[in-house]
Amino acid sequence: MKTLLLGIKDVKEVLSLKEVIIAVEEGYIAYNAGQVQQPEIVSIEIPENNGETDIKSCYNKLNESISVKIASGFYNNGKNNNLPTMIGTILLFDGKTGVPLCVMDGSLITGIRTGAAGAISSKLLARKNSKTVAVFGGGGQARMQIYALCQVMDIQEVRVYSEYQNELIKYKADVEENTNVKVIICATPEEAIKNADIAISTTPTRKYIVHKSLVKPGMHIVAVGADMAGKNEWDPKIFKGAKIVNDSIAQCVSRGETRNAIISGVIKETDIYAEIGQLIAGEKPLRESDDEITIFDTTGMGIQDNVTAVKVYEIAKKNGLGEYFEFI
Amino acid sequence: MKTLLLGIKDVKEVLSLKEVIIAVEEGYIAYNAGQVQQPEIVSIEIPENNGETDIKSCYNKLNESISVKIASGFYNNGKNNNLPTMIGTILLFDGKTGVPLCVMDGSLITGIRTGAAGAISSKLLARKNSKTVAVFGGGGQARMQIYALCQVMDIQEVRVYSEYQNELIKYKADVEENTNVKVIICATPEEAIKNADIAISTTPTRKYIVHKSLVKPGMHIVAVGADMAGKNEWDPKIFKGAKIVNDSIAQCVSRGETRNAIISGVIKETDIYAEIGQLIAGEKPLRESDDEITIFDTTGMGIQDNVTAVKVYEIAKKNGLGEYFEFI
Repeated sequence: MKTLLLGIKDVKEVLSLKEVIIAVEEGYIAYNAGQVQQPEIVSIEIPENNGETDIKSCYNKLNESISVKIASGFYNNGKNNNLPTMIGTILLFDGKTGVPLCVMDGSLITGIRTGAAGAISSKLLARKNSKTVAVFGGGGQARMQIYALCQVMDIQEVRVYSEYQNELIKYKADVEENTNVKVIICATPEEAIKNADIAISTTPTRKYIVHKSLVKPGMHIVAVGADMAGKNEWDPKIFKGAKIVNDSIAQCVSRGETRNAIISGVIKETDIYAEIGQLIAGEKPLRESDDEITIFDTTGMGIQDNVTAVKVYEIAKKNGLGEYFEFI
Repeated sequence: MKTLLLGIKDVKEVLSLKEVIIAVEEGYIAYNAGQVQQPEIVSIEIPENNGETDIKSCYNKLNESISVKIASGFYNNGKNNNLPTMIGTILLFDGKTGVPLCVMDGSLITGIRTGAAGAISSKLLARKNSKTVAVFGGGGQARMQIYALCQVMDIQEVRVYSEYQNELIKYKADVEENTNVKVIICATPEEAIKNADIAISTTPTRKYIVHKSLVKPGMHIVAVGADMAGKNEWDPKIFKGAKIVNDSIAQCVSRGETRNAIISGVIKETDIYAEIGQLIAGEKPLRESDDEITIFDTTGMGIQDNVTAVKVYEIAKKNGLGEYFEFI
């Protein structure tokens, strides 16, 4: 019984944003249709090594596969060694037999499926004529959100703000090289978000950077950075009266940006409008006016890894990438 | 960055019961000393394919490694295909950097570390002159318990009972070939347990097979089979007045044989004497008389997989076994 092994180069060769967006949409639909088992996220914190490891697992009845992603962040990496801070591994098992089908690098998949999630939300919820995007943060996910968004909307200007201004020169160069948008480096959150149709936050901050007064009617917000209790990018008051969409209500309420709005008393859980799968499935209206503020809060779901990894596995197998190893 | 790959043959070549027993003892001590993070077990049930997948993860501060074991039981395997029902994969990550050190077959490790656990308990709790062992069940774990026990005690006779009597011919041949004990096939549980010093249960039964009247003073019981709510091998009344030792109280109370004694009202959680790590660490007396009935309930812990997998990894690396693959 042979298991396919895919390194980061193989995964990179195979990953196409367009296909991942389609796969993640299918994943959200499967989840909404009750075809997905997604156990609680397992978290191991290793403060003595400035690291953490999360395990996201998922069974998708539609593709009959079990995925397990082990994703680590070790924040001393790159200082005393040449390792990346974020390292991930994904395993795929046949849901009919338990056989390990594939072990692949999972470092790139988290980024791309998260970018896909944001883009899907903008396609559904942002005003159709959206052109200007504010981005908070200048790292990998701040890039990926734009790359994915450009697949689904005609974006012209990105206004980027980061606490670490020096990373934005490279950000601008990269995004302008890979897309047709113009990137404007902003010195304040206010400057970035002014006139933005869509605003995307990708930072790990624990003290919010966007005050309520900066959010204008009609804006679509994509809240990506807050994925565990304690992280907070947006003034909770922004949630008041907004159309709030979650990837998974259970997760967003316990570890997403939505949690902050609930624990600060701005909204109740029942004020959450929908899960994104419900919108894709057409169960509820999307944006209903040009003045509505819409918020998509994403904490990242095992089903996104599942559908993306299966897509990678299938294309890699077809194209003869990777190597095989007999574990059993 | 290269990751070591070990197939089932490599793991088999490296696994030595003697070393696994030492490793598991060290693991129990580490757990008892608060050096181990062992998140909740993740369970995915796939009834439509008669299968289940469990994920046991662990961080051991002493060896600075994270282990993740994905173990499946697909009970249609072997009928329409040639696959084993139990398939496992273990990943080891560097707890300092998150780097994947090793991906190995985990099918054998569960069996051997569980055998080691039983043997460790008998060494600690059984009467020193124990010679005769009753075994319930005739599968792989029924063998492994004896192989491990023979490493630590001078056993002379095994009296085995199984609901499936026809599997016991092969059981007798295997155990007699691999040890110096004489195996006696018994037609009833009563016949098996009569005069036994140690009694070991390894079945998946949900309706207990050993009545209280069969358990004599001085006996040491090793309860292996019950590892999830609903499974039950021993009359709960046996727990009354016995010295009850768990691998992990949290796990045994929620999914072990101990659970049955508690929910049937025979004992309270406070009647549990100790975790096995406390005994190895010398924090509490072991057996205190020849008449005492001692019970070891084991549900299987991530730390056992961790220490065993690290042992396998280290020996395999030293001996140049397996292959390497660059995931990152």
